[in-house]
Amino acid sequence: MIKVGIVGGTGYTGVELLRLLALHDEAEVAAITSRAESGRRVDDLYPNLRGYYDLVFSEPDVAALAACDIVFFATPHNVAMNLVPELLQAGARVIDLSADYRIRDAELWSRWYGEPHASPELLPQAVYGLPELNREQIAGAALVACPGCYPTSVQLGLIPLLARGLVDTQSLIASSASGVSGAGRQAKVDNLLSEVADSFKAYGVTGHRHLPEIEQGLADVAGGPVQLTFVPHLLPMIRGIHSTLFARLVDNTVDLQALYEETYGQEPFVDVLPAGMYPQTRTVKGANRCQISLQVPQGRDTVVVMSTIDNLVKGASGQAVQNMNIMLGLEEDMGLRQVGLLP
Amino acid sequence: MIKVGIVGGTGYTGVELLRLLALHDEAEVAAITSRAESGRRVDDLYPNLRGYYDLVFSEPDVAALAACDIVFFATPHNVAMNLVPELLQAGARVIDLSADYRIRDAELWSRWYGEPHASPELLPQAVYGLPELNREQIAGAALVACPGCYPTSVQLGLIPLLARGLVDTQSLIASSASGVSGAGRQAKVDNLLSEVADSFKAYGVTGHRHLPEIEQGLADVAGGPVQLTFVPHLLPMIRGIHSTLFARLVDNTVDLQALYEETYGQEPFVDVLPAGMYPQTRTVKGANRCQISLQVPQGRDTVVVMSTIDNLVKGASGQAVQNMNIMLGLEEDMGLRQVGLLP
Amino acid sequence: MIKVGIVGGTGYTGVELLRLLALHDEAEVAAITSRAESGRRVDDLYPNLRGYYDLVFSEPDVAALAACDIVFFATPHNVAMNLVPELLQAGARVIDLSADYRIRDAELWSRWYGEPHASPELLPQAVYGLPELNREQIAGAALVACPGCYPTSVQLGLIPLLARGLVDTQSLIASSASGVSGAGRQAKVDNLLSEVADSFKAYGVTGHRHLPEIEQGLADVAGGPVQLTFVPHLLPMIRGIHSTLFARLVDNTVDLQALYEETYGQEPFVDVLPAGMYPQTRTVKGANRCQISLQVPQGRDTVVVMSTIDNLVKGASGQAVQNMNIMLGLEEDMGLRQVGLLP
Amino acid sequence: MIKVGIVGGTGYTGVELLRLLALHDEAEVAAITSRAESGRRVDDLYPNLRGYYDLVFSEPDVAALAACDIVFFATPHNVAMNLVPELLQAGARVIDLSADYRIRDAELWSRWYGEPHASPELLPQAVYGLPELNREQIAGAALVACPGCYPTSVQLGLIPLLARGLVDTQSLIASSASGVSGAGRQAKVDNLLSEVADSFKAYGVTGHRHLPEIEQGLADVAGGPVQLTFVPHLLPMIRGIHSTLFARLVDNTVDLQALYEETYGQEPFVDVLPAGMYPQTRTVKGANRCQISLQVPQGRDTVVVMSTIDNLVKGASGQAVQNMNIMLGLEEDMGLRQVGLLP
Repeated sequence: MIKVGIVGGTGYTGVELLRLLALHDEAEVAAITSRAESGRRVDDLYPNLRGYYDLVFSEPDVAALAACDIVFFATPHNVAMNLVPELLQAGARVIDLSADYRIRDAELWSRWYGEPHASPELLPQAVYGLPELNREQIAGAALVACPGCYPTSVQLGLIPLLARGLVDTQSLIASSASGVSGAGRQAKVDNLLSEVADSFKAYGVTGHRHLPEIEQGLADVAGGPVQLTFVPHLLPMIRGIHSTLFARLVDNTVDLQALYEETYGQEPFVDVLPAGMYPQTRTVKGANRCQISLQVPQGRDTVVVMSTIDNLVKGASGQAVQNMNIMLGLEEDMGLRQVGLLP
Repeated sequence: MIKVGIVGGTGYTGVELLRLLALHDEAEVAAITSRAESGRRVDDLYPNLRGYYDLVFSEPDVAALAACDIVFFATPHNVAMNLVPELLQAGARVIDLSADYRIRDAELWSRWYGEPHASPELLPQAVYGLPELNREQIAGAALVACPGCYPTSVQLGLIPLLARGLVDTQSLIASSASGVSGAGRQAKVDNLLSEVADSFKAYGVTGHRHLPEIEQGLADVAGGPVQLTFVPHLLPMIRGIHSTLFARLVDNTVDLQALYEETYGQEPFVDVLPAGMYPQTRTVKGANRCQISLQVPQGRDTVVVMSTIDNLVKGASGQAVQNMNIMLGLEEDMGLRQVGLLP
Repeated sequence: MIKVGIVGGTGYTGVELLRLLALHDEAEVAAITSRAESGRRVDDLYPNLRGYYDLVFSEPDVAALAACDIVFFATPHNVAMNLVPELLQAGARVIDLSADYRIRDAELWSRWYGEPHASPELLPQAVYGLPELNREQIAGAALVACPGCYPTSVQLGLIPLLARGLVDTQSLIASSASGVSGAGRQAKVDNLLSEVADSFKAYGVTGHRHLPEIEQGLADVAGGPVQLTFVPHLLPMIRGIHSTLFARLVDNTVDLQALYEETYGQEPFVDVLPAGMYPQTRTVKGANRCQISLQVPQGRDTVVVMSTIDNLVKGASGQAVQNMNIMLGLEEDMGLRQVGLLP
Repeated sequence: MIKVGIVGGTGYTGVELLRLLALHDEAEVAAITSRAESGRRVDDLYPNLRGYYDLVFSEPDVAALAACDIVFFATPHNVAMNLVPELLQAGARVIDLSADYRIRDAELWSRWYGEPHASPELLPQAVYGLPELNREQIAGAALVACPGCYPTSVQLGLIPLLARGLVDTQSLIASSASGVSGAGRQAKVDNLLSEVADSFKAYGVTGHRHLPEIEQGLADVAGGPVQLTFVPHLLPMIRGIHSTLFARLVDNTVDLQALYEETYGQEPFVDVLPAGMYPQTRTVKGANRCQISLQVPQGRDTVVVMSTIDNLVKGASGQAVQNMNIMLGLEEDMGLRQVGLLP
């Protein structure tokens, strides 16, 4: 069995890794760390895991982690960048679910995250873990930076258009909405049920940290800089991201439905819906899947793409396991065959 | 006391009219009709009204309605257009909350609503009941077409930009989201809690019936045709609409915050938030109020406007009462002073 | 105008007091305190209040509060008991929404609240502010202890049975459920939307602090000690309490429906529903109202009473305003005429 | 592979069977019927199933169903009782998720379901499919009546007490609450999100159809008739049942925690929580699991048991698959290893 370590396992991406890995045929969680909950059983904190794990949260210990084949960082940003160098040297391979290695330009990273990058020397070798773009590099990577949740949904939605140069790259718009679990498991008044249930609001309009990550990824595909207006919103529910994407067509001779179906036809976790069916976050709940559909309303020149994921699965822990499977040469969907929970 | 009649009172806009009128100083509900619930007490159907009304739903009766000073239609579209001619002739003044008189062009109306208009001769005299645009005409009107919920939020959000010619009128975008009460109180699988809770989806992307209404209103303000890409979404909650509006600035020399504050400074029910504060649907829940804020992210050329209302109040019944007050020369906020219910 | 002071105004009972008092004809909020938010406008924290108040949170200042006619404490327990003595001496009348003066026995209070009572000498003069029981004493009181939310719903539901000696007093059961706003506006992981949405659980089964308060109140009515098994549950919603009460009939010759209608026939805020109609929390949302119904299933010997309130209104701030009106000889429903928000 | 047929597959128990069987190692869905959706792909109705099934809903056809090894009825009551005789004769084994064969007394069944039973001759051979009680009979059964959702949670919660004679059997109380999916996927105003979100209510207090089923099951365990006061409530969420059970101890010398742990120690799908931990519906969401805990508040004589399940899994389709596994001699947890989805 492959030995897996998880750093920072008390958050929602941590418990989601445990949920997925519980049914993984080849991987076994050998260590899970948490300073705050050290000594506590994981199934005491997360009773859904009772019967699946005998694990106890432990203090972070580099030696124990280095003994793992794969180490996941399910930590807030700025933790991984301090620990990863040592782990790589010790021979571990790392999948970082935080933002630390997602942006290649250390200075740009610092501007958005408000502090110097602790291991900028690793940025060139970190592979951006969007399998649909970078499957081959991921296979050989020692360090994979797992994409953010919004970036996954936005990029998968826009890639086919940008790769073919069909839209104006300077006026892209993403109106995205996320369930509250995206904000993590932190004691904040802002995320109390009494504050966010029965309500909807935009936030981070002047600049969300996922913006540079998305623009970097889209620029790679477009072959040049892009400008995206990105407005995230908070949904009164736990899981799910829905991105509604708007782009101006500069070429409307292409059958877009066919283009999308072709682009993603071989992808196990991207599902282009038949024309006329719209994605809903509930149809991907708990599943490692992005469902996409598109329309050109009124036959005008604006294409609308809708892209949904479960932010904790294809937007985080599921994608991380997918990356692990690729890195280890396993079947890409091992541990990821769960069907979305509907209703 | 002013005598009020309500046609089709069993739906959500009906009960909301009753809630608001229960505390109105000058108006009294004299008749409320419903074929389906004829003979049933209104407070048996809506127990929140117990103690406020002694009314019983009755069969629609033109004579009884014509004896009212004001008749509200809280019906599905296509009911009012058949009854209004007779009521007007009998001397009643009508406020129609349905879509029947919102679009001036009968042919355009037919195309979107799928049937011929039954009283196209009244379209020229119907006043579009958005007080912020048409207060004077409303005051003298015999027939007011109360705006739709999405159209209210989108128009109030874009009017200042279009009136001043600051944005490209051919690439407007509205990404709106509504609570489920907007779909009314009808037995449909699609609106069951088990179908729409914990989920988010777009719908009507190829063409929602509110699109021509919005484009008509915006064109009036802009002084020429506009093109809007309008994508509505369904929120897993009961009340509230949030519209996120995107427009390309063709003139960025104007202080937009000041423009909005000035435009709406005297409006009792439009509240421009201070820069940096974003609207939430929960802060207008139960209140006849539109809260608006705006940003130009990254100092680029796209302005983002956020506009929220309670779809059943400023988006329907509250706006209807506001129109009534204007028509009758009453204080415009009579019966509409309720504070939003937060949390 | 009557000058009102509010201590601890940033919580949910504070904002609810402001919502209700905004439309009160005779009362005016002169001071509102908060250490944490001192200097901040109340409508910056609670944008639903924009346009209704020009107030700023201030540091607690006894002189300023003592200059008020009525001072509400909307604080966590243990604050009021330290400040009230001074305020009473200065001539203010106090309505305490916290638990500090609800239990007459200081030792019992200490056992449940884990600290000595700071002003036990005031306990004999504090009046328990359940108007349906103590209207006369409230009228003349200098210090009113506003009942807890669960205790309001449970007591109003059981009083008629106990007052008439119809049920066994030693085997009472209350299975209650509350929206999350009952837990207040505090940064706790336990009350995040992601933790409590889409879920239901019991809590405090071994002993909730409202138990001794309820048993004290019921014992007064029964004329002797009672035993209640009280199990509160957390509902995935913001507002509302529903108590399902079970009692064994020792006398089943009485028409219970008639008894309840008679008991509460003159009460402005207790509404006994017709036989066969069950209360829902949504029909009292935002309203100062308790709706009650009852059944004896299968004609056996257990009576089931269902009692609903909005925990923030009849369970807290509305009841507090009702007490204020009684203390000041105003119409009891002044500022409390709002209709429940449905849907 | 075992061939499975599903009758009435468009409802929530139908889609849940498909979700679970999609990952079952030994079973394969060969036919799924629906009159209303005949000819439609199952993954068009339920897009979470895209990629897992190539099935199309078909008209019910006895021959096709009889060719299956196991036929599930996921229909409203009164359908199975008409079709099952023919299927049994044809050699199929049947698992009925509806109520048709749950009550042994045909007359009692008729009284609660309002019509004569169509195949009373089968009642003696129908095995009540609660594996924790009847595992052996299930193994050999041709016809299994899958328990209702409430009955599963209530019986599993009370069995240990009744089996040992520790409580008064004539004053049992169950205060249960269910998510809305328990009401099925039918177009009813009562179950619209706008009607049941943000609210909580009791229903069926005078007599819910699950009452005789529960009392029958408990009487078997107790060895004599029992009286239960059963009050179901509707929760503003999709999945989950929580039963809070109250019973008067007649013997309090027994260590109840130990008793429960011992009773269910070998059960794969009943999880007795450690003392002090309370079950939440969210920890069993999507899992075939009943989590139970208990307390004796204040050391008095009333024991409180809390029992949670996912109504669509252990309360319906999961339990049905568990029964199938037992009937076929497969590992009992095949296809049922999913971890609860938390958060």
